[in-house]
Amino acid sequence: MRTITRPPLTEDALIATIIEACGAPARPLRVGIGDDAAAWKPNPHHLALVTTDMLVDDVHFRTCDTRASLIGRKALAKSLSDIAAMGGRPVLAVIALGVTADLDEAWYRSFYDGMGSLARSTRCAIAGGDIVRAPALTIAVTVIGEVRRTSMRLRSGARVGDVIAVTGALGLAAGGLQIIDSGTPRERFDELVMAYEQPRPRIDDGVFLGSRRAVHALMDISDGISTDLRRMARASNVDAVIEPDSLFVHEALRRVDSDPLDLILNGGDDYELIASVDARAFEYVARTFNARFGRPLRAVGRFEPGGGNVWLDRKGKREPLEPGGYDHLRKLR
Amino acid sequence: MRTITRPPLTEDALIATIIEACGAPARPLRVGIGDDAAAWKPNPHHLALVTTDMLVDDVHFRTCDTRASLIGRKALAKSLSDIAAMGGRPVLAVIALGVTADLDEAWYRSFYDGMGSLARSTRCAIAGGDIVRAPALTIAVTVIGEVRRTSMRLRSGARVGDVIAVTGALGLAAGGLQIIDSGTPRERFDELVMAYEQPRPRIDDGVFLGSRRAVHALMDISDGISTDLRRMARASNVDAVIEPDSLFVHEALRRVDSDPLDLILNGGDDYELIASVDARAFEYVARTFNARFGRPLRAVGRFEPGGGNVWLDRKGKREPLEPGGYDHLRKLR
Repeated sequence: MRTITRPPLTEDALIATIIEACGAPARPLRVGIGDDAAAWKPNPHHLALVTTDMLVDDVHFRTCDTRASLIGRKALAKSLSDIAAMGGRPVLAVIALGVTADLDEAWYRSFYDGMGSLARSTRCAIAGGDIVRAPALTIAVTVIGEVRRTSMRLRSGARVGDVIAVTGALGLAAGGLQIIDSGTPRERFDELVMAYEQPRPRIDDGVFLGSRRAVHALMDISDGISTDLRRMARASNVDAVIEPDSLFVHEALRRVDSDPLDLILNGGDDYELIASVDARAFEYVARTFNARFGRPLRAVGRFEPGGGNVWLDRKGKREPLEPGGYDHLRKLR
Repeated sequence: MRTITRPPLTEDALIATIIEACGAPARPLRVGIGDDAAAWKPNPHHLALVTTDMLVDDVHFRTCDTRASLIGRKALAKSLSDIAAMGGRPVLAVIALGVTADLDEAWYRSFYDGMGSLARSTRCAIAGGDIVRAPALTIAVTVIGEVRRTSMRLRSGARVGDVIAVTGALGLAAGGLQIIDSGTPRERFDELVMAYEQPRPRIDDGVFLGSRRAVHALMDISDGISTDLRRMARASNVDAVIEPDSLFVHEALRRVDSDPLDLILNGGDDYELIASVDARAFEYVARTFNARFGRPLRAVGRFEPGGGNVWLDRKGKREPLEPGGYDHLRKLR
């Protein structure tokens, strides 16, 4: 048992700071922060959902050049996106934090402010957590959500003939990361940097799509569509065919010093949703989606008979699309 | 984006290993490992509970000299104990793992075997998780449980006059850690080492105590009774008085090269429960507890009017008991 220099905060004092920063919960809990566990009354007519994600300094973000509020926000956004990908809404989150000795009270305050603000706007209560020492800042977020039984959509529901649709532009976050990494002034690339730093979990989109009978499968794009679409194709036991010519290229992507198609196919962190939509109903679903959100639901390809492969189709010429996205056991960035 | 030597496993392959190691879930889930989130049908007559804990290599355990199966087991046990401390039972767990490059398939298999075996015996499903790169092995466990509304017990329910009771011997785990640290052959200290390496979450004890009307408050002892009892006293706005002469000293503790009283008061990792029991009913509760579990429920002191202090009472002479337990922002071990 070694004793280190006493940091400004004790564990109990920090918990008080968190309660203050996260404010009143977005929805009432029976028991919130401060007891052995949090407690709530689940909706008896819904299914409960749970997802967990871990983010580590120098792997998923860099504390040295990212504001604490953005780190807190993004850590929560990632898990909220998983709840959206099931067609559900968040209920509460618990946060386990591995901290280094150099973080001060202002850092914690900013971190929980960023997280708390996204939590409030998505009606997700911060219900508790754990704080321990670690060699690098490590954030583990678990979000619990709920979904109407009939609105839940899995990865495994895609059917042959379905249209592959996405809820927004892809590759923006990867472009933003490149701008930050290269030290390019961010003024001209604000949309890309924002997409990387402040992704918006598509909760309303997920609820909307989950409630359409024509939507057979749903998932979010966290590791790049080349990787995530393959996961959906495998889970559904079909092949996916993407038509690169039909992909939407955001104009800011053309100004980045990279192949836009590579960013779109392999860039992670976009947190848009992939939906597998009955082809006969796609036009109607896309029209109502646009009317509801003022953004298009874009078709990027089709599911075909197969066993989990993804193909690029350039005017009838097929080539396999290998997963170029982020695999945590394969790469470090 | 740096590329490192390819480890033997991809993320998707590792998930397959986990599903295999954890086997069929202890209770049926609507959606288990492999989708964006896990889904289950909550019991409509119960409250839902959630707790999260993070464990880090070299802080909470040492990968170099601890079997992976014990690490996996203990990580889950810690959170199960929090559910027990509310009077509840576990439903499912999700596991976020930060891994280093040197872990091989055998390590993962052993880790999930240890965790899976405790999960099965406590009827807790392993429902999902996340795996990322980290500078040191980091485990974040979130357990979701459920509890009858009338059986939930908080830290804040202790009343003046209540008996402070504990479900088992204290200080054993701290003694075990000392045996391991000092390199003493463990043969003669098996009970202590077992208490440290394989703590048993007191789930049945918690359910039993939560269902007794005379039990007003409940929590688990993870950081040492001097620290945790103060948390209960503060939450309940009472003072706690411990009579050191009445504390049970396990005979193995007398053979350790430390003051047994220090281990009992300040040693963490025991995961026994503290209950605050109506004094008039204590004898009856203790008798039925003993009949049910074949172990005594031991009185260690009383709650008195006050504001969150803990006192040691040696034959009427009082001295304050400072929290000597584990505060993650204050100490490293």
